[in-house]
Amino acid sequence: MKRSDNDLAFLLRYENVAWYEDGKVKILDRRIYPLKTDYVVCQNHREVARAIADMVTQSAGPYTAAAMGMALAAYEAKDLPEAAFREYMQKAAHTLSHARPTTVDNMVAVTSHAMDIVHEQLASGKSGLAIVEALFTDAIVQLNHKYDRIEKEGENLLRLIPKDGTVMTQCFAETIVGMLLRAAKKQNSNLKFFCPETRPYYQGARLTASVIADMGFEVTVITDNMPGFVLKEKNVDVFTSAADVISLDGHIVNKVGTFQIALAANHFGIPYYVTGSPNRGHATIDTVTIEERDPKLVLESMGQKHTLPGVKGYYPAFDITPPSLCDGVVTNKGIFSPRDLHAYLLVRSEE
Amino acid sequence: MKRSDNDLAFLLRYENVAWYEDGKVKILDRRIYPLKTDYVVCQNHREVARAIADMVTQSAGPYTAAAMGMALAAYEAKDLPEAAFREYMQKAAHTLSHARPTTVDNMVAVTSHAMDIVHEQLASGKSGLAIVEALFTDAIVQLNHKYDRIEKEGENLLRLIPKDGTVMTQCFAETIVGMLLRAAKKQNSNLKFFCPETRPYYQGARLTASVIADMGFEVTVITDNMPGFVLKEKNVDVFTSAADVISLDGHIVNKVGTFQIALAANHFGIPYYVTGSPNRGHATIDTVTIEERDPKLVLESMGQKHTLPGVKGYYPAFDITPPSLCDGVVTNKGIFSPRDLHAYLLVRSEE
Repeated sequence: MKRSDNDLAFLLRYENVAWYEDGKVKILDRRIYPLKTDYVVCQNHREVARAIADMVTQSAGPYTAAAMGMALAAYEAKDLPEAAFREYMQKAAHTLSHARPTTVDNMVAVTSHAMDIVHEQLASGKSGLAIVEALFTDAIVQLNHKYDRIEKEGENLLRLIPKDGTVMTQCFAETIVGMLLRAAKKQNSNLKFFCPETRPYYQGARLTASVIADMGFEVTVITDNMPGFVLKEKNVDVFTSAADVISLDGHIVNKVGTFQIALAANHFGIPYYVTGSPNRGHATIDTVTIEERDPKLVLESMGQKHTLPGVKGYYPAFDITPPSLCDGVVTNKGIFSPRDLHAYLLVRSEE
Repeated sequence: MKRSDNDLAFLLRYENVAWYEDGKVKILDRRIYPLKTDYVVCQNHREVARAIADMVTQSAGPYTAAAMGMALAAYEAKDLPEAAFREYMQKAAHTLSHARPTTVDNMVAVTSHAMDIVHEQLASGKSGLAIVEALFTDAIVQLNHKYDRIEKEGENLLRLIPKDGTVMTQCFAETIVGMLLRAAKKQNSNLKFFCPETRPYYQGARLTASVIADMGFEVTVITDNMPGFVLKEKNVDVFTSAADVISLDGHIVNKVGTFQIALAANHFGIPYYVTGSPNRGHATIDTVTIEERDPKLVLESMGQKHTLPGVKGYYPAFDITPPSLCDGVVTNKGIFSPRDLHAYLLVRSEE
């Protein structure tokens, strides 16, 4: 698997790029992209965890960042004796997977997988830079698996959208939107998009809309108070989003705002489809913690405060959409009812 | 009626102040308040209309600005012969009332009333500065009538909110929120508020929240994608807003975002009350035009663009909430069902 691989290069443009190299992890700073293309350079795995907590990278980005962070942790510990190395890696796995509360379960899957590699490598007598290399290589393998999975999600989602239809998204991750558009191009489906801007970070305006415009599709940004009006006024055919967590009882945890758009879509009879994989680790929604971020971030915009002293802020990063408002969970293995997600776990993946 | 009147001073602090004086109209620039307190000084009535179109003043402000603009128009035309004066005033009335499309009906009521004064004054032999003074004095009388009306709305609204309850607002005009809070203080009801910020102008964060904090009540600002989550999470008791138009068939036209909050409130069984008066001029919602503003305003924040070239914008200023989502129209004459607004027209006002 080479970095120059064309397909990977295509994807990395839209991916929350995080990359291990020479004892550092470089992460694309999505908080300012596309106004500026800049990278945060992490000197150790704790800095990677801090970058994830600070939302340098978001949506699917933290998973790659955590895998690359594990390679970096191995580099930091490369000269330790075996027992100390194992312990160091175990602690690093915990630090990286617990950077943000809502997605701990998914992140633990990433770091546990990396720990399996560590144990295998040690068992076969490897140490030092060899383990670093093995972790880096595996991070790329996992990235490609993820791309394969998301490519299928994109193709399956496209089946649910009328040709040349109008789609509303909410903070839609770049890889899935890129995959959807690549599939749409192959079928000459000239989709049009409405992207709510997604305050306070404007991911919808800055990231989702940028990918769509860049790939040559029509995209219109609206503010987050407009989806209810626009769904009807602009004859939107489908509302879609990815998810940070899909619990096995069919609740969708995604960027705050998803719930109220899903509710309005439901009111107008417009289907809402979520892409992603159900989370084995969450049998019900009750085990998911909704992250609250620094309230001062909602009292300012682009770094400029616009409220009087004494005014408080509240910043829940995600909300919960119940299964009653979701018309289908679009996975790599097909489309499932949110009422029957155990079925997903029973289907053997072709991967 | 003196300007130093205490009650008026209290209100003018929160009002969209527009004031005729010495051949000019001064309007508080709400686009930047409270970051800066600055005034736009209009040299003629066309500049007043331009200021209204540019949203220097909003919500209830344009009505006072239009009345003061009529006084200014009379000043401009003070030396014209009677027929030309009448014609000049008639044209000014049209220009001022048509500055923004959605509220033309209400604005025509203001300028028609001013034209009645003009005709009366001319009939009784007055001219020049005497008519200017009569129009200015009447603008103050109308302002006081408005305050009386809104004071009753505030008192009636308070009856629908549990003592020490939690209220969500949407772009709530300063006068009504000031009147509500004054009534709440009298009853020692320690209300708490959640204000969506109301992009793209942040009226909720800058204006509504400022009045509430200034009057000593707890207020929390959230972004416009959060109301659906917050309504339930924070046990909100009541959602309330004012309206730019309430058609006689019970549809509410208000700042975009009102509809999706009303829908979420309805989903959770939280009542939505609108304050204001039904509009005689709109028998049904079909005669109301929803204003679309410059799309570039949604592609930027605080003057800074955050989207790539090629990304479009769409900016409907208002949305429409159907009567099925409204639990009561709170007027100066009491609380009416949105299904029976003709009843309001039959009640004699005590004014």
